[in-house]
Amino acid sequence: MDKLILASNSPRRKEILEKFKIPFSIKTSVYKEIFTNEKPETQVLKLSKGKIQTLLELNPELESSLILGADTCIDLDGNIIGKPETVREAKEFLVSFSGRSHKVITGLTLYNGKNSSFIQDKSITMVNFTKLTAEVINWYLNTNEWKGAAGGYRIQEQGYLLTSSISGSWYNVMGLPIRLFYGMVASQGISIF
Amino acid sequence: MDKLILASNSPRRKEILEKFKIPFSIKTSVYKEIFTNEKPETQVLKLSKGKIQTLLELNPELESSLILGADTCIDLDGNIIGKPETVREAKEFLVSFSGRSHKVITGLTLYNGKNSSFIQDKSITMVNFTKLTAEVINWYLNTNEWKGAAGGYRIQEQGYLLTSSISGSWYNVMGLPIRLFYGMVASQGISIF
Repeated sequence: MDKLILASNSPRRKEILEKFKIPFSIKTSVYKEIFTNEKPETQVLKLSKGKIQTLLELNPELESSLILGADTCIDLDGNIIGKPETVREAKEFLVSFSGRSHKVITGLTLYNGKNSSFIQDKSITMVNFTKLTAEVINWYLNTNEWKGAAGGYRIQEQGYLLTSSISGSWYNVMGLPIRLFYGMVASQGISIF
Repeated sequence: MDKLILASNSPRRKEILEKFKIPFSIKTSVYKEIFTNEKPETQVLKLSKGKIQTLLELNPELESSLILGADTCIDLDGNIIGKPETVREAKEFLVSFSGRSHKVITGLTLYNGKNSSFIQDKSITMVNFTKLTAEVINWYLNTNEWKGAAGGYRIQEQGYLLTSSISGSWYNVMGLPIRLFYGMVASQGISIF
């Protein structure tokens, strides 16, 4: 078995695997994320698998590898919130989160090249936001952390100050629920230690 | 008012203030931490204040400054757990945490040189540990993260994998509950934005 392949270009996922000293390499393919009307949980699982399938189609030599695919979205009352494209959209997102809770959902797919199987699971974290004043929202938008961030905030940076509490995995909100990942790896008889 | 002075040498506290882009400088004095039989909450508040008082005694020119003192301890069933001195002690701590909960308590004292007042508050986070196998404990001790860490683990590093969940502030477990700090600063009429 080769070492783990991460089928994601997310700098955050790379950082988390490095932090936990997991040897891996990154291989990605162009994969267009299209959100549908299905339940958010269903969609992130599909997308995380789709990324691996596209990668395997384009690189058949990887078919005996161990590959991790991941997709994270924000679910506000059943609606998927993506990455804001403008500061105005980022502001709308923050206003919609103010004083309420939303879910951060990551779907993980692990492809085990030993038996060509796909293992899937998801992690859901509730994030509670404080009541945001216009002053706080303006301050936060000026940090520019909203750029490229799902929902327009980064909990691992100053965006933490917008939240009052979370329930569930911290690393899930950052894009890779590491305990869930370890459990999936362990279920395949691969020791993490 | 001068910029904030942090009366602590903790690299972790320094890192948190930097992450949140708070301008500060570090000034510390030799201060011997002696734990007593008082309640852990009482002790961390006393120690966080003591660090500032010693600093002010030795550096009277700081008396008009804004100074932050902090002290963190682990409370397991009312007993204070400090930093392990040997790998054997670190192992004992981890065994005692296995499959159970303990509290991480940080006492903060903010000295406001404008009116020579001391403001105090504390943050308590419950940390739940998974049931640790001997294999996991040995793996973790080999990471050497136990050195210099209260309780012998670092939740912000691979020690995260020993925990199943936390309830309360994440940054408190790292040594500086940042939301509590902001609240204390705001209570003094100093805006954080």
